[in-house]
Amino acid sequence: MKLAMSLAAATKGQTSPNPQVGAVVVKNGEILGMGAHLKAGTPHAEVHAIAAAGEKATGADIYVTLEPCSHFGRTSPCADLIIKSGIKRVFIASADPNPLVSGKGIARMQDAGIEVVTGLLKVEADTLNEPFFHFIKTKTPYVTIKAASSFDGKTAAKTGDSKWITSPESRQDVHRLRHEHDAILTGVNTIIHDNPLLTARLPQGGKNPIRVVLDTNLRIPADANVIRDQSVKTIIFTGCEIDLSKAEEIKKYDVEVFSFPANEVPIKEVLKNLGERNIMSLFVEGGSKIHASFIKSGFFQQIILYMAPKIIGGNKAIPFIGGEGADFVKDAPVLEFTEIERIGGDLRITAKPLREAKQ
Amino acid sequence: MKLAMSLAAATKGQTSPNPQVGAVVVKNGEILGMGAHLKAGTPHAEVHAIAAAGEKATGADIYVTLEPCSHFGRTSPCADLIIKSGIKRVFIASADPNPLVSGKGIARMQDAGIEVVTGLLKVEADTLNEPFFHFIKTKTPYVTIKAASSFDGKTAAKTGDSKWITSPESRQDVHRLRHEHDAILTGVNTIIHDNPLLTARLPQGGKNPIRVVLDTNLRIPADANVIRDQSVKTIIFTGCEIDLSKAEEIKKYDVEVFSFPANEVPIKEVLKNLGERNIMSLFVEGGSKIHASFIKSGFFQQIILYMAPKIIGGNKAIPFIGGEGADFVKDAPVLEFTEIERIGGDLRITAKPLREAKQ
Repeated sequence: MKLAMSLAAATKGQTSPNPQVGAVVVKNGEILGMGAHLKAGTPHAEVHAIAAAGEKATGADIYVTLEPCSHFGRTSPCADLIIKSGIKRVFIASADPNPLVSGKGIARMQDAGIEVVTGLLKVEADTLNEPFFHFIKTKTPYVTIKAASSFDGKTAAKTGDSKWITSPESRQDVHRLRHEHDAILTGVNTIIHDNPLLTARLPQGGKNPIRVVLDTNLRIPADANVIRDQSVKTIIFTGCEIDLSKAEEIKKYDVEVFSFPANEVPIKEVLKNLGERNIMSLFVEGGSKIHASFIKSGFFQQIILYMAPKIIGGNKAIPFIGGEGADFVKDAPVLEFTEIERIGGDLRITAKPLREAKQ
Repeated sequence: MKLAMSLAAATKGQTSPNPQVGAVVVKNGEILGMGAHLKAGTPHAEVHAIAAAGEKATGADIYVTLEPCSHFGRTSPCADLIIKSGIKRVFIASADPNPLVSGKGIARMQDAGIEVVTGLLKVEADTLNEPFFHFIKTKTPYVTIKAASSFDGKTAAKTGDSKWITSPESRQDVHRLRHEHDAILTGVNTIIHDNPLLTARLPQGGKNPIRVVLDTNLRIPADANVIRDQSVKTIIFTGCEIDLSKAEEIKKYDVEVFSFPANEVPIKEVLKNLGERNIMSLFVEGGSKIHASFIKSGFFQQIILYMAPKIIGGNKAIPFIGGEGADFVKDAPVLEFTEIERIGGDLRITAKPLREAKQ
């Protein structure tokens, strides 16, 4: 199962909106076949593994990180394939997250006389597909807020200067995360201030996430990099009061302007809209204000902070989470620190809402 | 040497102004004696270890974490004792930090025909006695700034509320650190706002550090806990403009009021004054402003931050480092993260000025 997990883990960023899955076929301690689901619309992990095993699969065990499917989608059900292959035992890490089909694949295989063992490395497998599970359950993307700060929580000095707080290694790591996400979101202030490309620039190339900009009054400069750069689509979400001729001008590029009938861009509706576009994971690289909006509304699944060992100091420097803030400590949202890594001289700290408080 | 290091490490907080030292006497793989320096004015580690070994010390090896002394202090030189004991080989971790005597103990033993091997576990031993080494070289205390903050670097909400950001485990750990320091320093604003006792309250008891308050205009309430509580001495450093009758009133308790001929309390002079009192380690538990003063002046050796997984947020909340702050990122002091530990649900992050930049 560890091998199956490794196969699944290797496909990070390329299977959306499908989950990452690995499968290994074993008989008498010998590996007969292995595979992973590589891309939506292509064969599932079980198909690759069983194809490699061929006729030898009869009487073998299969280890698969996610419950084999029992429905006809773009491929035929893997549960049927396993039954047909003559496999005798199936080991499963994660159950299917879709409550409508969860357990159906298992039941179908058991009915055919196959022994099914569940729960092996379940926690690891569930964590690997957290964004997928979240998406299946909520129909909205898994939201990761990314921030960079000094040791004392500042994302910029009082003059607005922020280049560069973190190490080159951290900034490279951000490009890796962009590559792994379906979409990247920022606010118009960041566009005006930094004019970023928001692409995934990795040495080995990278998949660019769809770019999303929250811009209530369509203040974005018409020559911004996210409009003129054609390497990936950009969606601008606005409120109802915008300059329509400017919108037309912008739409000439591969840019969509989507207006909500509201005075402020509603985050909940943005997430719903992105979910309808099969965007499973959203990387929020906003400024202080955007971060505060997502946190206040509770629409986030994790925060990844790159913290540099520098001290910017000052009451007027810009904190990485701004907005109004809590009046009292007891009202502050409580998270848990799930991962701490050293990157370059920096720390990468990941925090998630406490399990009990999760949506 | 690892055992000698353990013996030395166990005495944390009780040897000041002397270093922590451990010693082990070994012959043919058998431990003949071991000891640690327990308290200033009592025998050195080598004396305990050699006494335990008795006549068997002849021809033995001794492992000692710090270069044996060669001068007459409150005890006679350990180098002479080693020579007299008949020990044949001496293993040393740290050299003597005092440039005037460094190497003299080694030379004296070598002259007597003893083989001396240096450098074993040197880094660990140097780290253990960092405060002592700093004190010997600068005659000022080793300064540890302690702060507590939310994930986003706030030490209090915009209303001033700060109870409690960190976990009970973190707050207990702070009492352990108070116990390990010779003195604890805070600003008058913290006294006015929180009225703390600043004592080391540990389940097993604890040694209270001398209390130091920076209070330019002697604004401290005469009935503050640090004045009325008699468990340990308090020193209040002020500028020249103070109410002398209030000072007389305060001095009736075990409190010293020390005034500098200046409009602001000069941190450098405070450290010099504390050094003259043989205060080797200073624990700064100030507010946002005191921390900023120490950092701006460069008079600190480490910062220990207890970071809770909470988000206070807000541009008006109080950052754990306040003051004016840097105008540009390139001007921000650069540290290195030396240690990250989980305490309760919090992180304890230790950072020190970059080695190149150390005073």
